[in-house]
Amino acid sequence: MNKIHLCTLAVLTSLSFSSLAKDCDANLLPSWKDSDSKTAIVNFVEQSTDSSKATFIPVSDRIAVFDNDGTLWSEKPIYFQIAFALDQIKALAKTHPEWKTQEPFKSVIENDLEKVFAGGKESLLQIMKVTHSGMTVEEYQQSVEQWLAAAKDKRFGKAYNDLTFKPMREMLTYLQENNFKTYIVSGGGVDFMRVWAPEAYNIPEEQIIGSALKYEYSFNDGQPKVMKLGELLTLDDKEVKVENIQYIIGKKPVLAVGNSDGDQAMMQWATSQPNSMAMIVHHTDEAREWKYDRQSDVGRLDKALDEANERDNWQLIDMKNDWCAVY
Amino acid sequence: MNKIHLCTLAVLTSLSFSSLAKDCDANLLPSWKDSDSKTAIVNFVEQSTDSSKATFIPVSDRIAVFDNDGTLWSEKPIYFQIAFALDQIKALAKTHPEWKTQEPFKSVIENDLEKVFAGGKESLLQIMKVTHSGMTVEEYQQSVEQWLAAAKDKRFGKAYNDLTFKPMREMLTYLQENNFKTYIVSGGGVDFMRVWAPEAYNIPEEQIIGSALKYEYSFNDGQPKVMKLGELLTLDDKEVKVENIQYIIGKKPVLAVGNSDGDQAMMQWATSQPNSMAMIVHHTDEAREWKYDRQSDVGRLDKALDEANERDNWQLIDMKNDWCAVY
Repeated sequence: MNKIHLCTLAVLTSLSFSSLAKDCDANLLPSWKDSDSKTAIVNFVEQSTDSSKATFIPVSDRIAVFDNDGTLWSEKPIYFQIAFALDQIKALAKTHPEWKTQEPFKSVIENDLEKVFAGGKESLLQIMKVTHSGMTVEEYQQSVEQWLAAAKDKRFGKAYNDLTFKPMREMLTYLQENNFKTYIVSGGGVDFMRVWAPEAYNIPEEQIIGSALKYEYSFNDGQPKVMKLGELLTLDDKEVKVENIQYIIGKKPVLAVGNSDGDQAMMQWATSQPNSMAMIVHHTDEAREWKYDRQSDVGRLDKALDEANERDNWQLIDMKNDWCAVY
Repeated sequence: MNKIHLCTLAVLTSLSFSSLAKDCDANLLPSWKDSDSKTAIVNFVEQSTDSSKATFIPVSDRIAVFDNDGTLWSEKPIYFQIAFALDQIKALAKTHPEWKTQEPFKSVIENDLEKVFAGGKESLLQIMKVTHSGMTVEEYQQSVEQWLAAAKDKRFGKAYNDLTFKPMREMLTYLQENNFKTYIVSGGGVDFMRVWAPEAYNIPEEQIIGSALKYEYSFNDGQPKVMKLGELLTLDDKEVKVENIQYIIGKKPVLAVGNSDGDQAMMQWATSQPNSMAMIVHHTDEAREWKYDRQSDVGRLDKALDEANERDNWQLIDMKNDWCAVY
């Protein structure tokens, strides 16, 4: 009911501009108002799939890459994977009495997040290492699954995997129905995302690219296992996103969607060819989600916002004005 | 004509055992004689795709991984990618007069392969670095394409990409028709394979995993490019094959096919679950291809051969006796 109410409000608000142009009841992409963003998506798909047009893209080249945090689900007030790590520290604290006096664990246990984040990258790395390595991939993913089943986002009171964006899920479905191979290319951990993203987005494990710690295989007397080591394999952000796309996909995507400067490189890479498009989810909706861009530490959108304003095939998605529903 | 002749010969040779059991005219996998290998493939596919059986595998889990060198195409007398590198050195020698006196280039130019290989890994690395880095991925792949169009294997007088194994191509097609996602997981270079393997095997670029040099993305004033650096990113062999499968695919394959001890780890990994299978291409045919196993430097099959003899769901493919045609 809440969604319908908000949508109605949004439609009423926009009546002064154009009542017809903001239809929320369409069959196609129903959570998108009739807006430049929706038009851009539909035009892009139609021109890519019409074999009579010069803009046609063969199925094998229909590669679309999506950032995850802030693009397909929320990333505020902190990345959800960090929320997982902090909760894990608290759960593990029982068997680590020494953490009561040892930073950054002490501050985590005392819920003093300001102090945790004041410790910078080094603190976060320690927290990530303790909660993300020294176990098999399977064990790690079980802990993520258990956490997801129990944890709730404080602001919305929802499970974290219920905070994916409905309009973006519709966009993914629309692309998939038109034979686009949809990929996630995210700074988030690949093992973390593979637990819930396949179901949330209909994107299989093998189409999820992300940050990773090194893996170590051992045969172990007929009980082979893959351990997660405490050393970084790849931090999938900025230029590295392009390098990982080259290494893992081996093709230049025709569509790249992100929400921050961390996605600018892959958007530049994708749109350095004809018939391509980049889209940016602009967080403009403090009532229904969050509002941030140039000044935000998490998901900063500054240089890519300038570039979007300059380039014809870079389309900004205005969350507040373009979406009938958020979640 | 040659293939038919060889096949007839093979059938005649095997008449003393069973004339009916060696039929080469089947509709299914026609280049496979009726043999334990063929039976194993057909049984595996049938039990995996029959939803009424406990052995049924959902489509999303039908991941099959194949080594390339020695499994899907030949690898003798030297890996074909090494043949490419040596030919490139000769082509580049015109603009590198200093190589006339500088090893290992001098020996390459003088066709003294024994001396080149006597230099060991260090020599080979120098050759690979010069021919595989310092250029964009696009430039590199164009050079591979040009080489493939012109170069011929000395023994068979065929283009290298015509030396893929016909029975294995049939096996790939059969799996693909039954909704298996077929992957290459090879020690060969991923950028090298992506030039020709998609057409040869109907396996798209994004389902090819291999060794790689590091990549470097730069924006370059609106002309973004990805360079191949002279530093190793991954040597996709042995345990690393499993680690890369975990990182890139994120699922345990249900079928792993290889031909050497370098594939043993991924075969162990795949078959550490029910309803899985490993297969090994055993090079037993010196007349039609090559004959080697335990003593070979390239494609050594020793420990994995022992394991195949011990395990029920590890199936040896006897190239000489199981295949009607090789290429």
